Amino acid sequence: MARRIIDLVARDIRTPTSRTLAGSDAVHKDPDYSAAYVVLKTDAGDGLEGHGLTFTIGRGTEVVIKAIEALRHLVVGVTLEQVGADFNGFWRSLTNESQLRWLGPEKGVLHLATAAVVNAVWDLYAKSEGKPVWKLVADMTPEQFVACVDFRYLSDALTRAQALEILHRNLATRAAREAEMRRDGYPAYITSAGWLGYPDDKVRALCREALKDGWTRFKMKVGLNREENIHRATLMRQEIGADATLMADANQVWDVGEAIEQIKALRPFNLLWIEEPTSPDDILGHAAIRRAVRPIGVATGEHCANRVMFKQLMQAGAIDFCQLDSCRLGGLNEVMAVLLLAAKFGLPVCPHAGGIGLCEYVQHISLIDYVCVSASLENRMIEFADHGHEYFKHPVHVRRGRYVVPADAGYSAEMLPQSLAQLEFPGGSVWRG
Amino acid sequence: MARRIIDLVARDIRTPTSRTLAGSDAVHKDPDYSAAYVVLKTDAGDGLEGHGLTFTIGRGTEVVIKAIEALRHLVVGVTLEQVGADFNGFWRSLTNESQLRWLGPEKGVLHLATAAVVNAVWDLYAKSEGKPVWKLVADMTPEQFVACVDFRYLSDALTRAQALEILHRNLATRAAREAEMRRDGYPAYITSAGWLGYPDDKVRALCREALKDGWTRFKMKVGLNREENIHRATLMRQEIGADATLMADANQVWDVGEAIEQIKALRPFNLLWIEEPTSPDDILGHAAIRRAVRPIGVATGEHCANRVMFKQLMQAGAIDFCQLDSCRLGGLNEVMAVLLLAAKFGLPVCPHAGGIGLCEYVQHISLIDYVCVSASLENRMIEFADHGHEYFKHPVHVRRGRYVVPADAGYSAEMLPQSLAQLEFPGGSVWRG
Repeated sequence: MARRIIDLVARDIRTPTSRTLAGSDAVHKDPDYSAAYVVLKTDAGDGLEGHGLTFTIGRGTEVVIKAIEALRHLVVGVTLEQVGADFNGFWRSLTNESQLRWLGPEKGVLHLATAAVVNAVWDLYAKSEGKPVWKLVADMTPEQFVACVDFRYLSDALTRAQALEILHRNLATRAAREAEMRRDGYPAYITSAGWLGYPDDKVRALCREALKDGWTRFKMKVGLNREENIHRATLMRQEIGADATLMADANQVWDVGEAIEQIKALRPFNLLWIEEPTSPDDILGHAAIRRAVRPIGVATGEHCANRVMFKQLMQAGAIDFCQLDSCRLGGLNEVMAVLLLAAKFGLPVCPHAGGIGLCEYVQHISLIDYVCVSASLENRMIEFADHGHEYFKHPVHVRRGRYVVPADAGYSAEMLPQSLAQLEFPGGSVWRG
Repeated sequence: MARRIIDLVARDIRTPTSRTLAGSDAVHKDPDYSAAYVVLKTDAGDGLEGHGLTFTIGRGTEVVIKAIEALRHLVVGVTLEQVGADFNGFWRSLTNESQLRWLGPEKGVLHLATAAVVNAVWDLYAKSEGKPVWKLVADMTPEQFVACVDFRYLSDALTRAQALEILHRNLATRAAREAEMRRDGYPAYITSAGWLGYPDDKVRALCREALKDGWTRFKMKVGLNREENIHRATLMRQEIGADATLMADANQVWDVGEAIEQIKALRPFNLLWIEEPTSPDDILGHAAIRRAVRPIGVATGEHCANRVMFKQLMQAGAIDFCQLDSCRLGGLNEVMAVLLLAAKFGLPVCPHAGGIGLCEYVQHISLIDYVCVSASLENRMIEFADHGHEYFKHPVHVRRGRYVVPADAGYSAEMLPQSLAQLEFPGGSVWRG
């Protein structure tokens, strides 16, 4: 722990997914899955590095890089010992810097940059302890856990004392859930069969392949055109059958009234949830939609900026599923806050994943949730999309529709040196072509 | 109008206000009033340029500059004719770019950058018509006005048809209000007497000077310490008297429960409003505070990210005063949307100003509001702080506590060439010292 961070390198890493329309949806028609990638170096002389990233979709990644560099003076010079002694203090030094906070606060580019840095610090911290991040946290006392969390602006919904009570309640049974997870893995669902830009034949083939691999939970994309949505839902149900779980994702495409009409038209398809039916900022709009479209659940979160927005989504009864994003929230510390909020409100957390590195991150988050916080698997599953895992040193393993518990030290989102070289924008070989 | 934008230059402009603690408050202890500054050049050969800025407070301005450059491909090549024919289409091309939107959407650094660009386009447009921006808009038909507005995500609270109805209702009487404004000016209040970092003596002296200049409305800063807040409020009331209007600004420093207790302690001082009592994202928190602290009003908005957040602040009954920011919203187009929302909900708009260039901008906004939208001055006033006006080509004129209607063509936030040279960061003479 007497390790001092002496350098921070930020790299612009992009993959050309728009060439195949992987990841395409109603508002992101041509994403190039990308990452603002951070490497922390220390003075320990043992070569251990902290690697962290925030997921982006192409253009603008250079802006996040610039924001990471703006945080540099808050990170370089800090020791892991200082971080471990007051992790929330370190977190708040990034999110509440007296001049930089004007650019957010706690949202947008600067918060995405914060996530990459904070996730890199967790990676370094876990590696220095020789544990995967989920296990590092699962071995914390409730008091150590809450010391990572900023309760500022949460106390009307969740106090530190209430958080401690939740964590203490589940403390004695942690080991049993940890053993269960090592044995069974964590349940997942698959998104990558149903991208909006894929033709019907490709969707059918991907569904069949996924069924063969043991998947029982599927997500499809929907959009503005009601007939196409019904067509795609019919096709998905034909392929996966009546018993498989099906969700739909609208990616923010509707106004509130329009959302209600469009979702009602999808009622025959027995959807577990409709995801991002409208603006991610519209808490009251989600609440109105949720009241109108039952029994279809409402899910959102991949564009939810921070814990204060999640607090309100829960207070307003706006969501059935909390889809926090490991990189849009300000790194694992704020994720831990949202896990506690969700437990307080009795809501399942089904983290957003896919993209680049998100599956690698969220397996840790759902394990922390199950082992330490919610102690429940009911209505809980991790998103999975099968893109870009080959770039990572320790990619996720999914077996029969479940994530296999990661065993390697760190936070799992370290990319291979050759991948970083190849994908670096604009100089890498992928982009020079 | 056959003018094509052929270049966009972004400059990092900073003033060293932290050296005097001008602008200091409970969370921004040392602001350096700054601007991410945009210059648009055209092919018209007449030397007209569009100047726009977004206000920042020092570190991180370079990140906004980078974001402005990321928007460059959406601006360079566009003609003013195209913009004029579909201003909302142009606006949405900036705010809904399929890859860049991931970095927001419509919030944080990218939205601040959008504001600088959009404000520069309005400046250019108004100069090419030889009018101040407020007059350019005041001369628009209701149909032209709403064609500048993105109603996406607003339709559950405000439709295009309802907006048109508001504008038509006030159309016949526009000329009378315009004449009144030219004669009397627009009412204002002063903030620059009460910065948190100023010692008592300085506050007293500034209050006396402001009273002599005809000011009757004052704002003070408050913070975490209840005794100091009461001390400062006592001092302000001693200086300005019982009849002057007094507001207090907490700059996001409290949690919800804490805010209620702290504000109740300020009840003896007859405050018109408490500003930013908690997180700017906490719509439901503001609503809870508002219910608890009546008759003190609740004001917020300088950190309100976009029209969807304002919509909810109004739907939830969370505010008494809408303090939109001309640079945090995505430029004048989104400001126009929020003026319409406020009119629909019957709420007064008192725009946030101070900083650099904000006073110059908001005089246009309040004139547009009065002449075209709200047609009311009740509980309405523009913020004024007396810093940095000397850097501008057409600085605001305030006389006896009222803004004098600007007469020069454009949006008034063009800085003098020598100021830009002197303040450019880090190379300008102010920073080399």
